[in-house]
Amino acid sequence: MVAGHSLGSVGGLVKGHGTENDFLILADLDGRMALSSSAVRALCDRHSGVGADGVLRVVRTELANEPDVAAQADEAPFFMDYRNADGSIAEMCGNGVRVFARYLRQTGLIDGDTKVATRGGTRSVRFDGESVSVDMGPAVFRPERPTVVLADGQSVTAIAAVDMPNPHVVVELPDDESLAALDLSSVPSVSPALPEGQNVEYIVRVGPHALAMRVHERGVGETRSCGTGICAAVVAAAGAVRDSATWTVDVPGGRCEVSFSEAGTVILSGPAVLVAEVELCAEWLPTHR
Amino acid sequence: MVAGHSLGSVGGLVKGHGTENDFLILADLDGRMALSSSAVRALCDRHSGVGADGVLRVVRTELANEPDVAAQADEAPFFMDYRNADGSIAEMCGNGVRVFARYLRQTGLIDGDTKVATRGGTRSVRFDGESVSVDMGPAVFRPERPTVVLADGQSVTAIAAVDMPNPHVVVELPDDESLAALDLSSVPSVSPALPEGQNVEYIVRVGPHALAMRVHERGVGETRSCGTGICAAVVAAAGAVRDSATWTVDVPGGRCEVSFSEAGTVILSGPAVLVAEVELCAEWLPTHR
Repeated sequence: MVAGHSLGSVGGLVKGHGTENDFLILADLDGRMALSSSAVRALCDRHSGVGADGVLRVVRTELANEPDVAAQADEAPFFMDYRNADGSIAEMCGNGVRVFARYLRQTGLIDGDTKVATRGGTRSVRFDGESVSVDMGPAVFRPERPTVVLADGQSVTAIAAVDMPNPHVVVELPDDESLAALDLSSVPSVSPALPEGQNVEYIVRVGPHALAMRVHERGVGETRSCGTGICAAVVAAAGAVRDSATWTVDVPGGRCEVSFSEAGTVILSGPAVLVAEVELCAEWLPTHR
Repeated sequence: MVAGHSLGSVGGLVKGHGTENDFLILADLDGRMALSSSAVRALCDRHSGVGADGVLRVVRTELANEPDVAAQADEAPFFMDYRNADGSIAEMCGNGVRVFARYLRQTGLIDGDTKVATRGGTRSVRFDGESVSVDMGPAVFRPERPTVVLADGQSVTAIAAVDMPNPHVVVELPDDESLAALDLSSVPSVSPALPEGQNVEYIVRVGPHALAMRVHERGVGETRSCGTGICAAVVAAAGAVRDSATWTVDVPGGRCEVSFSEAGTVILSGPAVLVAEVELCAEWLPTHR
């Protein structure tokens, strides 16, 4: 096939993915770029643009134009300005921050483990070969135990509702066949629904500390991976906000691992792959600024 | 936003689209590349790869490794080796050949109107500003007039079945609301179905020579544009395999025009946009060859 090359310098756009959650990484170290929501939508359009689940803008933290972010500059050298494909601003993304860290290291902006500034606070990142780990903060059980209706009309009581800090409802199914048979093409019926809405994780125990999972993300639909959902699923399956084991979770986009820090926070580990450098054509730009 | 640049040289991969039918153009002028179906699938995967509806490999026609193609070398300097996103080989693609021609011209491989060698025969291409036209060959009415069931259970008799040369069934709806309300998420029920299967075009007349259209492509599902479907829809609406007027057809991905040559062939015109140059990362390649 065509020759690849090693990413050696910062600049332009890079496409990458973590368990098939894919992003366009945009270097803007001095934070001078006015990245409009329409530009994000145009870039992320999978047919008329480049295509991705979101854009990760790379800015030196002290030059970030948001006080809560710039205040993280002592700890975290770079700010991940995360935008969803619809152009909206988001706080954090577990798969996104791992791909972001891979980019920082591959381009030489950092030379090892680091901390990343986000709108959701500072996140620690560690590298271990192909895998990148991020500290996702603490999990918190909610009091609710909603019921979720499966496509065949059967109602299942959730094993737990977990804030990560976004809200999740976790449902356990008996076997792989039940998981494969789910129709997640429409929004799951959850009763009572959480006040802020919820992601719904459907899990099967495939080993003592191993899950298979599919997920329906609030406002998005079924996705191939969801970082916070993977963490919430393990917390629900363990029945505790910390556990001494390392868990594996297989999602449609690949495999992640979940463990717990001594401080009781949840650590998400998994692959983070840089796919290609992308240079926009001058002809495409004028209609998409 | 980020700076764009003018595509000035041949090499690597370029992403482009014609009415949002999108392609990766791969320069292999000497025809030496072994492009496996698994490599095509990996490149076209919209989450773990770059993402596209297909790959267009550019090869000098006399160096094409297929006798029926190499025989076109006197007329057509370049061969469009078209692969579907699933890795299968295809003969022709009306939107693809227009994007292919835009690439040839933008990179300086040609300096004006040209002919393109395809597995479906030689195709003439003309440039007119933003628009690229391709001669799609003759349309042929079929004897069948199948019935198509709409989502609300209503049955509609097709206004025509047309070979372009792939098989199309064209259904006329009364207004834009009916068109917008269609559920094309499953394969349309066509009775009797054509022996080879069919694309189904749903059209509304929005002017004397103007159509709005949605399309369900055989083996694919609803798409944002279909070059042969646009031609078949105009032939069906005109009630003749040629017409003196130039028709416009609005599809979800944009607007095309259809006219007829003196020889009675169908000419498809519309935008063809180069979006970005793409350079694969060395880290991504080993697992995707």
